[in-house]
Amino acid sequence: MSTHVFLAELVGTFILLLMGGGVCANVALKGTLGSAAGWVAISFGWGLGVYCGVWIAGISGAHLNPAVTLGLLVNPDVTEYAPGVAKTLANTLLYFLAQFIGAFLGAVGTWLSYKKHLDDPQNAGTQLGVFSTGPAIRSYGWNLVTEIFGTFVLVFVIAGLGHTPHELGPLAVALLVVAIGLSLGGATGYAINPFRDLGPRVAHAILPIKGKGSSDWAYSWVPLAGPATGGILGGLAAALMF
Amino acid sequence: MSTHVFLAELVGTFILLLMGGGVCANVALKGTLGSAAGWVAISFGWGLGVYCGVWIAGISGAHLNPAVTLGLLVNPDVTEYAPGVAKTLANTLLYFLAQFIGAFLGAVGTWLSYKKHLDDPQNAGTQLGVFSTGPAIRSYGWNLVTEIFGTFVLVFVIAGLGHTPHELGPLAVALLVVAIGLSLGGATGYAINPFRDLGPRVAHAILPIKGKGSSDWAYSWVPLAGPATGGILGGLAAALMF
Amino acid sequence: MSTHVFLAELVGTFILLLMGGGVCANVALKGTLGSAAGWVAISFGWGLGVYCGVWIAGISGAHLNPAVTLGLLVNPDVTEYAPGVAKTLANTLLYFLAQFIGAFLGAVGTWLSYKKHLDDPQNAGTQLGVFSTGPAIRSYGWNLVTEIFGTFVLVFVIAGLGHTPHELGPLAVALLVVAIGLSLGGATGYAINPFRDLGPRVAHAILPIKGKGSSDWAYSWVPLAGPATGGILGGLAAALMF
Amino acid sequence: MSTHVFLAELVGTFILLLMGGGVCANVALKGTLGSAAGWVAISFGWGLGVYCGVWIAGISGAHLNPAVTLGLLVNPDVTEYAPGVAKTLANTLLYFLAQFIGAFLGAVGTWLSYKKHLDDPQNAGTQLGVFSTGPAIRSYGWNLVTEIFGTFVLVFVIAGLGHTPHELGPLAVALLVVAIGLSLGGATGYAINPFRDLGPRVAHAILPIKGKGSSDWAYSWVPLAGPATGGILGGLAAALMF
Repeated sequence: MSTHVFLAELVGTFILLLMGGGVCANVALKGTLGSAAGWVAISFGWGLGVYCGVWIAGISGAHLNPAVTLGLLVNPDVTEYAPGVAKTLANTLLYFLAQFIGAFLGAVGTWLSYKKHLDDPQNAGTQLGVFSTGPAIRSYGWNLVTEIFGTFVLVFVIAGLGHTPHELGPLAVALLVVAIGLSLGGATGYAINPFRDLGPRVAHAILPIKGKGSSDWAYSWVPLAGPATGGILGGLAAALMF
Repeated sequence: MSTHVFLAELVGTFILLLMGGGVCANVALKGTLGSAAGWVAISFGWGLGVYCGVWIAGISGAHLNPAVTLGLLVNPDVTEYAPGVAKTLANTLLYFLAQFIGAFLGAVGTWLSYKKHLDDPQNAGTQLGVFSTGPAIRSYGWNLVTEIFGTFVLVFVIAGLGHTPHELGPLAVALLVVAIGLSLGGATGYAINPFRDLGPRVAHAILPIKGKGSSDWAYSWVPLAGPATGGILGGLAAALMF
Repeated sequence: MSTHVFLAELVGTFILLLMGGGVCANVALKGTLGSAAGWVAISFGWGLGVYCGVWIAGISGAHLNPAVTLGLLVNPDVTEYAPGVAKTLANTLLYFLAQFIGAFLGAVGTWLSYKKHLDDPQNAGTQLGVFSTGPAIRSYGWNLVTEIFGTFVLVFVIAGLGHTPHELGPLAVALLVVAIGLSLGGATGYAINPFRDLGPRVAHAILPIKGKGSSDWAYSWVPLAGPATGGILGGLAAALMF
Repeated sequence: MSTHVFLAELVGTFILLLMGGGVCANVALKGTLGSAAGWVAISFGWGLGVYCGVWIAGISGAHLNPAVTLGLLVNPDVTEYAPGVAKTLANTLLYFLAQFIGAFLGAVGTWLSYKKHLDDPQNAGTQLGVFSTGPAIRSYGWNLVTEIFGTFVLVFVIAGLGHTPHELGPLAVALLVVAIGLSLGGATGYAINPFRDLGPRVAHAILPIKGKGSSDWAYSWVPLAGPATGGILGGLAAALMF
């Protein structure tokens, strides 16, 4: 993999998390201009965050998500991660590395963009929702099921995008993510991307945020295992269907 | 019809109902992250559920709805249900079968994705809205009229999509469904698809949901008869217009 | 003009008003499922109503609005109303006739679709907003200015659509109408189409709606004169600009 | 630069500000039909305002924003501002002049469209938000950071639009602006365009608006310096990435 491909994947994921974390900050924190704008804002914000990231990362195939990489890995119909980028173990790990660094840096960007609101005493203890996901009702088994369904739809339908004529470009996958947020995001906050959750959670743990609470590491395996499983299942289903 | 076409129609309808039921669960149930997100969320959630399903079911023509199949059946300008799939009685029934199974399984998927919220005591007795439709003011005759109008617009305008140049792919029909939800969905919850209502209603009746109420079978014929009638009228109107 | 072109314009305007009136009914009336869904629902509902109508009326050029017809009439760069439809006085009047009949019938369709809600005593006296527009602050002169700006943008930007490459089809104009609703619709309810207001106002006056109030004929000249003026100015500006 | 190119840039920026100021008036003022429609309305309103402006200004490349012009200026891969428009100092200044005049006139158009609401006593002292941006928490340094991030994303991703196949036309950049509003707009109101802020601020200072408060010139340098810096950084990043 060329440095250029690695950087594209990293920067694309950075943009995705900068925007996705941003809409969570804008809607979830008190005192912002978009405070309490609701779930439609969250769903479109994340979907359009994907949209922004995908425009940047064309040469890496814009996975931006290890679940997507895993879905391509297990699908024997797919021979390359992007034009000219072979499906090797080394490249798989480089995708993961680029995605993790990008996700972490994106969360840092969100933190910088909403620094004063994150440090505002009225938001003390509730900042984690700007960074990583959490369940509405904590139940690790069922939370896992929800994340598997959401990520399955993501990876399975992305495969469908390549098999139907259209000229939407990155908007096609953006609207898919809006759809998943609206429909399957209400129980767990739809990580549907292991590093979308882990990168910002690490950032939350490290960054100096006034009055921050726990980083909730007890839950952190769910948005890793669920999306990984859903991505693999989605990739296998795509191999069977298309 | 090949097994592949049958499965595409089944899985596409499964995805549609998984997502459509999902947005109803997210918005209508208490305690979810998108609770009370409102009618814009519902309308875009269903529209984008169609969007997701259509990407999957390209080879079956992505009817995902017996009203669409009926509209094509009665339109003499249409000679095939999809490229290579003849308009025969057997194929018509196979479409219906695939759609019913898919719709039922999609409702099961919604149930699994929102299991803990559906069983939450604060949602006791109100879960039916996650599964099937119901009228805001019960009046079988007028509810039927509303469903006929909504489905007529769906099937008639879908025919128009094929007669106007664009490169939107599945987004074109998705936005049509958003439109119908926003405009014609407020009186009956816009089934506009007989099995979108029946499949989940059967699932509601069968599945073990804590504290569930009636499956309201008295109303169930309206979202069957209305969309069937509207689909036939829409197909006939398309034959006259285009 | 062939009967087919006349009918396309009529039916396209019918669909537009059925959907546009529908979203007003859904959001403005009490007791519907989308009651109080707000201005985002209204703006997308009307925009996507245009979207639905335009798919139907391709062969007439889908004016669906006398202000658009006037804008084309005064623009010397435009030689036909649609492919094969000459810019003659007779055709201009036939467009107006088709648009008025379609708008009136669309309002009847809205009435049928929301019959029980329109007759519900809790909506007595407020049904006019489902049919025609009205000012938030009554001031005929300034209301006229607002309607001129909105319609100017509509007709001027529509001309721009034909001068920039894209493959959006009817979505392009739909989003323009969403934009006008969000931005320029808040003072007068954005008729931006003389018959979008007049057709439904006549329907409100004629139809038997329980407890209906005044049809407010005193205001009715504003949404006729404003959009007509804005359409002519938009057409002239387009001739200068493009 | 031809007069035609100059006028296209001016009129495109006029339309952008007319629409953008319009949605702020509709949502932020009391008594309008869209009052309190929230941040989703604001974000889509501004994004679709860009959409409208870009359709008009195709021949000038539709910068509509000095930050975009600066981003192109510093990017050595870009050789022209638009087809046939050379990257010279004179043309750069002419773009700025057209953008400033257009932005100022657009604010005048918003004022005319919402005249009675802006003069309404219940809006006394709060009209500035219809014209220019302001921080939720005043902190010039961090407000600058937020504006730099937002404008960086704007200019960097716009460069990506030209490097990925799609047929969305002006919708592509419109959705980017929706994304930035939803995600990065909550702390400062996302000027992301120096003259989007300065032009309307001058209009607010000059126009006779009943009961208007301060034009807050103390803050006015932030939405100039932040977007200028972000645009330059975005253009440099684009040169490195693409």
